[in-house]
Amino acid sequence: MHEFDLIQIYFSKLSKSKGALNLNDDVFFDRSKNLAVSVDTYVQGVHFIDFKNPELVIKKIIRSSISDLICKGVKPRYYFISGSGNNKSFSPSNLEKISKSLKQEQNKYNIFLCGGDTVLSDKLSFTITSVGFSKKIIYRNKAKLNDDIYVTGNLGDSYVGLKVLKKKIRLNRSLEKYFVNRYYQPNLHLELTKKLLSFANTSIDISDGLIADLIKLINKQKLSYKIYMNNIPVSKNLDKLFILKKLKKELYVSQGDDYQVLFTASPSKFRIINETAKSLGVKISKIGKICSPLLESEIYDQKGMKIALKNQGYYHKF
Amino acid sequence: MHEFDLIQIYFSKLSKSKGALNLNDDVFFDRSKNLAVSVDTYVQGVHFIDFKNPELVIKKIIRSSISDLICKGVKPRYYFISGSGNNKSFSPSNLEKISKSLKQEQNKYNIFLCGGDTVLSDKLSFTITSVGFSKKIIYRNKAKLNDDIYVTGNLGDSYVGLKVLKKKIRLNRSLEKYFVNRYYQPNLHLELTKKLLSFANTSIDISDGLIADLIKLINKQKLSYKIYMNNIPVSKNLDKLFILKKLKKELYVSQGDDYQVLFTASPSKFRIINETAKSLGVKISKIGKICSPLLESEIYDQKGMKIALKNQGYYHKF
Repeated sequence: MHEFDLIQIYFSKLSKSKGALNLNDDVFFDRSKNLAVSVDTYVQGVHFIDFKNPELVIKKIIRSSISDLICKGVKPRYYFISGSGNNKSFSPSNLEKISKSLKQEQNKYNIFLCGGDTVLSDKLSFTITSVGFSKKIIYRNKAKLNDDIYVTGNLGDSYVGLKVLKKKIRLNRSLEKYFVNRYYQPNLHLELTKKLLSFANTSIDISDGLIADLIKLINKQKLSYKIYMNNIPVSKNLDKLFILKKLKKELYVSQGDDYQVLFTASPSKFRIINETAKSLGVKISKIGKICSPLLESEIYDQKGMKIALKNQGYYHKF
Repeated sequence: MHEFDLIQIYFSKLSKSKGALNLNDDVFFDRSKNLAVSVDTYVQGVHFIDFKNPELVIKKIIRSSISDLICKGVKPRYYFISGSGNNKSFSPSNLEKISKSLKQEQNKYNIFLCGGDTVLSDKLSFTITSVGFSKKIIYRNKAKLNDDIYVTGNLGDSYVGLKVLKKKIRLNRSLEKYFVNRYYQPNLHLELTKKLLSFANTSIDISDGLIADLIKLINKQKLSYKIYMNNIPVSKNLDKLFILKKLKKELYVSQGDDYQVLFTASPSKFRIINETAKSLGVKISKIGKICSPLLESEIYDQKGMKIALKNQGYYHKF
């Protein structure tokens, strides 16, 4: 069963529609309390390969969690971490690394630890609850016809990092380090958070993959989209790799773990978005358009040919 | 490593002392936002034996989670549930049972689901985040010298239920049902929540065991306690069992999973506590006293003899 169906069939009826956004969003927002909460579980073998570098895994899951708030226009304020694992995972040396790494993330993103739980278990997993306060947030399913589709930062680096870790791609040491670093430590744009509220109609962070998340973003709306591969931002390193190894861009930029913000905005906001990008030094790229439901959703490759993406990202199937 | 040491050594420094109570409480309280949050993880094999009765496991973990708020004087308002499990645990039939059971708990405790996460994993676990709002809460480590020690409801039923489930004790069917029911569905006293604020100096819910939790409750304070077995409240069924099977009360009432409120209050509050108990129909029993740090902590058995409890409850050791 698809994760969405599972929520729809069994759990939607348990939520009050206004607050929980019918469980259709990654973030819960209690407007009366200005409270936004995100809860995510990360399991070894699913969300991270191994625990050889606890300090990196911790960074990845903390960023993944607060990314949910940041993309909605909410600055994260504090977090709870609940870990299940064995003595080996939670050895004194690993705990020291975890603690140090959390401290670094706290300083970087101005958040602090408020509690959590530790449980003995032979399977390693973490649940992070992130909390922020905001008078408003950006919802899903609020795209408007003719909106431009934007994405922050670069896509695809993280996926190459994962391939390096899985030894499915070999590169020189410095390039391997670069991509693995992007996998574990995605660049979040905390400084953009509040600005997003002024121009984005709807937003999501890219965790499952560009197209998968775009579909989630507009899933309840009768709209279509056009995405242009040419406009999808990639790093210089990834661009070089495409040329060097003759890789198809479309197979790399929609695989997820990017934790960049995907949002739509009215064409009238183009100028302010560009000005904001410049003044904050954040890359924001226009990659497509929201179109009429009468049209088919389309993805254009770098030569302008329509393509189908076979792998539209990652879903949890039950 | 003891769970408390783990928190103290590696994680206390990551919290802002005021809000997170230095991570020494089960509940996080943000006074400026009147926000209380509790996060707990429940793992199969640790917190519940199996998943043959998903509807009962769900009730137990929801009650365990909101119990953390209730014992602090905070009414739970909503909750998040994050589940990791395989297709078998999350089969359509089980999901239906989980959903129905959550609905019943929602109606009983006036809470609602706000979100969560579902993750594929071969190990079954849940993390529940419960949220409530209150202008104040009852903290740990605020017992005063000469305070009386009180407990709500009955203790020990749940432990017998666990022994029945583990087939370590055999009873007639109706008694087995009674105790198993108390194990899975502890009686929480939602109606008492707000009243607690008016008389309790400090409070905790009993999850690990009476004495273990009493020690936690006053762990930072230089105080001792006296506990009288005679005064510890048990159900009629458990009392009968003690006589029938010649069981020692002290081996049954401090084993945990009771989810009753353990609190201390000034002797001057005795009358109002009794009146509250009567008017709400909630059993509240005075079971001991907070004493000078110059004295040893003491537990008296039913004949008035001092005893030592070997097993003081359950800790997570790493």
